Amino acid sequence: MQNVTLYLDYLCPFAWRGLELVYAAAPYLGLEITLRHFSLEQHNHPQNRGLAQNPAWRIAQQPRSGPRGLLAFLASHAARQQGSAAHLRFALSLLRLHHQEGRPLDEESCVEAAQRAGLELERFLADLEEEEARRKELTYDLEAAAELGVFGTPTFVLPSGDAAYFRFTHLTVEPELAVNLWELFTAFLHNGAHVETLKRPQRQQGA
Amino acid sequence: MQNVTLYLDYLCPFAWRGLELVYAAAPYLGLEITLRHFSLEQHNHPQNRGLAQNPAWRIAQQPRSGPRGLLAFLASHAARQQGSAAHLRFALSLLRLHHQEGRPLDEESCVEAAQRAGLELERFLADLEEEEARRKELTYDLEAAAELGVFGTPTFVLPSGDAAYFRFTHLTVEPELAVNLWELFTAFLHNGAHVETLKRPQRQQGA
Repeated sequence: MQNVTLYLDYLCPFAWRGLELVYAAAPYLGLEITLRHFSLEQHNHPQNRGLAQNPAWRIAQQPRSGPRGLLAFLASHAARQQGSAAHLRFALSLLRLHHQEGRPLDEESCVEAAQRAGLELERFLADLEEEEARRKELTYDLEAAAELGVFGTPTFVLPSGDAAYFRFTHLTVEPELAVNLWELFTAFLHNGAHVETLKRPQRQQGA
Repeated sequence: MQNVTLYLDYLCPFAWRGLELVYAAAPYLGLEITLRHFSLEQHNHPQNRGLAQNPAWRIAQQPRSGPRGLLAFLASHAARQQGSAAHLRFALSLLRLHHQEGRPLDEESCVEAAQRAGLELERFLADLEEEEARRKELTYDLEAAAELGVFGTPTFVLPSGDAAYFRFTHLTVEPELAVNLWELFTAFLHNGAHVETLKRPQRQQGA
């Protein structure tokens, strides 16, 4: 198995598409997916300018009802207690609820995601209530993301150590297309030219 | 033949590598390369913030001895008067002089690039002296770049209309490698997922 780590923020529609991509390709390519977290709210917070490594404003220290993305992170760490496969199903369910069905990232959606993912619900809720432990795990993930220089989601880390933010706008879940795109992505990162950036310009309106 | 447009700034080492790449791949893939210009100095000028479409500070209106990149642009437009193949050879020669041999982008280097590229030197110098015409051509290129939303160099425009900034750090001139990388690049841009961005994070030192 090849371990691929995916940094995500539940708020981000590109992270949703990124997870769908690697999830669809995984069984065909023998990929094992590890999910970790990166907070756009923390990264982009005005108080953290220039402080990515040592942020002044930390989402993991905010009240549960505060930042939009916090509860989903805590719930994600609660789901992770049931193993990485359960974690993956939970993340996919919650991302679909939010980005496909337009549901907010509230407690009701988190519980529904846990149910859809086939988690043990009582255990999930108990783990979610162990909030200090979940906040510590989140802090640990966000520190790892900062050390890696993550600046957006989805960011993938390949078994080779190559890492990249990878943003695409059309959802790819058909296995053949997903495998093809994943292979392009990895070939690009492994290419000897050491590709750093590919980015489409945004065509301007008028002139 | 497939026409590929490349927006470049002579100041930019990534534009140099980008031109080497497409130049090495062109004969094998039947690519015809059109060079156009984009100015990093104009784009990043403090007076132009938020004014990409209608810049307050325009490099084409500056004194010839002013901005570092201006003379190379004017010389590039002078070289273009001798046809697109001559233009391409001139650009490659000047980029190599500057980025490989560490020479400044001054008149001496421009003349040497014209010589290395096999241009008619007297005609080149005369065309360079027709400065108002060259400045108009430069303005036209920079306006086209702004309309396309170019934000850095090299930016390639494929025959399909897909366009992307494409930055890599290791020079690729061996034809097989160049063809391979070019094909990856175009496959990525043509992929149905509509890839918008791929960007490596910069690993942070310490914590």
